[in-house]
Amino acid sequence: MNPEPFLQLDRVIHEKGRLPIMSLLAATAELSFTELRDTLKMTDGNLTAHLRTLQQAGYVGLTKTLQNRRPLTTCSMTQAGRDAFSAYIDLLEQIVRLNRET
Amino acid sequence: MNPEPFLQLDRVIHEKGRLPIMSLLAATAELSFTELRDTLKMTDGNLTAHLRTLQQAGYVGLTKTLQNRRPLTTCSMTQAGRDAFSAYIDLLEQIVRLNRET
Repeated sequence: MNPEPFLQLDRVIHEKGRLPIMSLLAATAELSFTELRDTLKMTDGNLTAHLRTLQQAGYVGLTKTLQNRRPLTTCSMTQAGRDAFSAYIDLLEQIVRLNRET
Repeated sequence: MNPEPFLQLDRVIHEKGRLPIMSLLAATAELSFTELRDTLKMTDGNLTAHLRTLQQAGYVGLTKTLQNRRPLTTCSMTQAGRDAFSAYIDLLEQIVRLNRET
């Protein structure tokens, strides 16, 4: 078996908590912090930590605005995030195929 | 998006270092520690730690014997390991499909 696809998996995306965040953001232009949190049933602290990691990797941008005088955080995927996520999904597909062959 | 497939991912298998170990063992009856280590280009310490986690989860069995008076460790996947890995690969396939649709 060729271990390359496994070695190439991006740890930032592969983490179980961050993978669904990336999937959601890949499917849409932007989502509010609250929408992400409620869809993924995450705690505020957990989601904040994962978003920070994704932001530091350059995969996600966070925009803070006010809506009816309340702070609103909006999350969106950067082009670097889209490229990295697309490469990651390609690797997952290779891994599934590798394991279906055996 | 339905977050269920993501929530169900087995962390023991999902870890980047353990996934290729499980893939290799799923494809064969048994492999020696050395074969695993060399194929995956892992350090002894790293592989030992991952195998211990997989053993504790009941997914992998380790057999220690002597070969030409030298200790030989052989690794094989248990039925519980095969079941869990098969379920994991099904989830990966769902995740790939979810992300191809969007």
